Amino acid sequence: MHTHLAASSVLSHRARASQSSVIRELLKLTEQPGILSLAGGLPNVDLLPAGKITEVAEAVLSASASSALQYSPTEGLGDLRSAVATRYQCDVGEVRITTGSQQGLDLIGRVCLDPGDVAVVEAPSYLGALQAFGACGAEIVAVEGDQDGLRTGSLGSQLAAGLRPKLVYVVSNFANPTGSTLSWERRVELATLADRYGFLIVEDDPYGEIRWSGEALAPMRTLTENCVTLGSASKILAPGLRVGWCIGPSWCLDAMTRLKQATDLHTSSLDQSILCGLLDDRVFVDGHVAKVIARYRGQAAIFSTALRELLGDQVSFADPQGGMFLWLTALDGSGSTRIFEAALSNRVAVVPGTAFGSGARCEQSVRVCFATLNEADLLTAAQRLAQAWPQSRP
Amino acid sequence: MHTHLAASSVLSHRARASQSSVIRELLKLTEQPGILSLAGGLPNVDLLPAGKITEVAEAVLSASASSALQYSPTEGLGDLRSAVATRYQCDVGEVRITTGSQQGLDLIGRVCLDPGDVAVVEAPSYLGALQAFGACGAEIVAVEGDQDGLRTGSLGSQLAAGLRPKLVYVVSNFANPTGSTLSWERRVELATLADRYGFLIVEDDPYGEIRWSGEALAPMRTLTENCVTLGSASKILAPGLRVGWCIGPSWCLDAMTRLKQATDLHTSSLDQSILCGLLDDRVFVDGHVAKVIARYRGQAAIFSTALRELLGDQVSFADPQGGMFLWLTALDGSGSTRIFEAALSNRVAVVPGTAFGSGARCEQSVRVCFATLNEADLLTAAQRLAQAWPQSRP
Repeated sequence: MHTHLAASSVLSHRARASQSSVIRELLKLTEQPGILSLAGGLPNVDLLPAGKITEVAEAVLSASASSALQYSPTEGLGDLRSAVATRYQCDVGEVRITTGSQQGLDLIGRVCLDPGDVAVVEAPSYLGALQAFGACGAEIVAVEGDQDGLRTGSLGSQLAAGLRPKLVYVVSNFANPTGSTLSWERRVELATLADRYGFLIVEDDPYGEIRWSGEALAPMRTLTENCVTLGSASKILAPGLRVGWCIGPSWCLDAMTRLKQATDLHTSSLDQSILCGLLDDRVFVDGHVAKVIARYRGQAAIFSTALRELLGDQVSFADPQGGMFLWLTALDGSGSTRIFEAALSNRVAVVPGTAFGSGARCEQSVRVCFATLNEADLLTAAQRLAQAWPQSRP
Repeated sequence: MHTHLAASSVLSHRARASQSSVIRELLKLTEQPGILSLAGGLPNVDLLPAGKITEVAEAVLSASASSALQYSPTEGLGDLRSAVATRYQCDVGEVRITTGSQQGLDLIGRVCLDPGDVAVVEAPSYLGALQAFGACGAEIVAVEGDQDGLRTGSLGSQLAAGLRPKLVYVVSNFANPTGSTLSWERRVELATLADRYGFLIVEDDPYGEIRWSGEALAPMRTLTENCVTLGSASKILAPGLRVGWCIGPSWCLDAMTRLKQATDLHTSSLDQSILCGLLDDRVFVDGHVAKVIARYRGQAAIFSTALRELLGDQVSFADPQGGMFLWLTALDGSGSTRIFEAALSNRVAVVPGTAFGSGARCEQSVRVCFATLNEADLLTAAQRLAQAWPQSRP
């Protein structure tokens, strides 16, 4: 006779705590047929370099099948680590490969955060980071941000008043969800605070290369050794490959590697070999990134022009200098969840700001991604959003 | 001015606890040039189906680049879940894809085990499971096993005496490290105990298809619903793809999927698409598995014959009916670590039994893998091991 376990008898506290996610349930609705989705952070499929990847895959499988298909070192294939070190100007010893940069967040969280430890994030922040740090039982303290990123002055005051985080998480360029870039002055101040108070800066930078105006700022890791920078092939090449990297001090990276061994042994050897083949062709990668930049710049211009024409003074947002997102803030009292719901009834999907944190900045805003849809669909989506907006007023 | 963090100021208790691993340091020695390694659990590179994978990769990248290179669902590609369900005779709703079955162990551990919870393993057991459950802060209770797998009678007594594990972990077929297969009687008894005491059976089965004699036994999941079975493409196709799967009840799998989203978002879309293409070609996969079986059967026969001739009554081991491992137990008082060291000085690498647990069964044994090396190297390795053995006597 079979007795079925009650889930509650075996599930850990962590698993039980994560059982209901309103956001996750909401976002499932955005995948219905007929919906134009601005909700995902998905690259435009036209920009996935399938031809080049096919060519590189054939080359690595014929030249070194045993390294592309066999078990490989937990820290990542040596050739790929070298290719990353070359492109991002660091020492190969500072590089470890992860299964997407999401795994970097999971591993950093687990090697730094004991239950109850404090992790500081910007309000609002990337949902995947909140999930990863939350799964460690960390207390997540959100410090307000603005168009120049995390308010380091506010963080400084809280540190002076006794806040002692183990880590501070920032998406330094074209942040998810707000699109804002941490200013140079704040980078310097954040680095100084890390050195003074002894916390680790986790600098997540998947969008930094997708810049079409303004000056690129040096990564935080050049300002302090108390920093791990996460990079990813997902936004510039292909997210399906699931390859990311961490650049940082060995005391942290070595602990991450030990844990990674218990987590997935290593990142796909085939995907690493393919990425290595792509990065080794510098002319291709630079050309492809230029193509991504040109495409998203064009899409951003068309979409934001349409929104300004159609929504006028009902909404506020900054003209993007790069990345994939606009952060639309209602000036007419519309609430985040109501905009989401009204948009969905008009067959366009956005992400309510409340998915990324709490507070006024989240409750009056939604995130839209201009990268995924082509121009014609972006225009239709802007029209649907403009129809929806008045329906979301209080 | 830079201040470097002391690792101890930021690392979590978990990370600090894992800083020194004697085993990991020892095993690095086995990778030196000139060493014939029987230490890894690596498939023979001749059996990695590079040609077929190239063909399938081209096909999926040309037919559906957007699904092979784009973000994909956390639970796994629907077509791959269906292919797994078909091959392993279960419902598609019972299948989730993981980044190798090592990730299955990590996720199951984290959704079931709070710090201090009990996880039962067989003594000795797979090192990666010990690491994954240990990383959750679980108390790992090792129950003695023998040539028929975990001693369920002993487990039953301990349960009757009050032991209350959240999960019991077994490698049900041709176990790593002992090569033993859980007998039918013990499968039935273990299922009964799971139903009675309310724990989850974690059945890890990467080797089950590699059987060349004896009768295949039904998986534990057919005997109780309180079971998650982990499968893997690593041993029958290619470990570098890093694709595994879990088959089990939705209360557990859904919790794993929620956690997986924070862990790596999803498993490589490209690797999943390739595996799906391989599994869809049933004739190819069955033929390839037959080739793996024939090859390992031959290698096992040659290697074990050589060992019996050269080491005679100094060592005891069972003739394998499948899998990749022999568990060599010293009959002459030689200790596990001393055999390892003597073997290494004779340029052959084995894994000391103490890597897999404690107790007499581990302290007098070493694990050797007959899958990796070709026949000539296996004979040389057997000779080197035979030279080393007398040097390891107390």
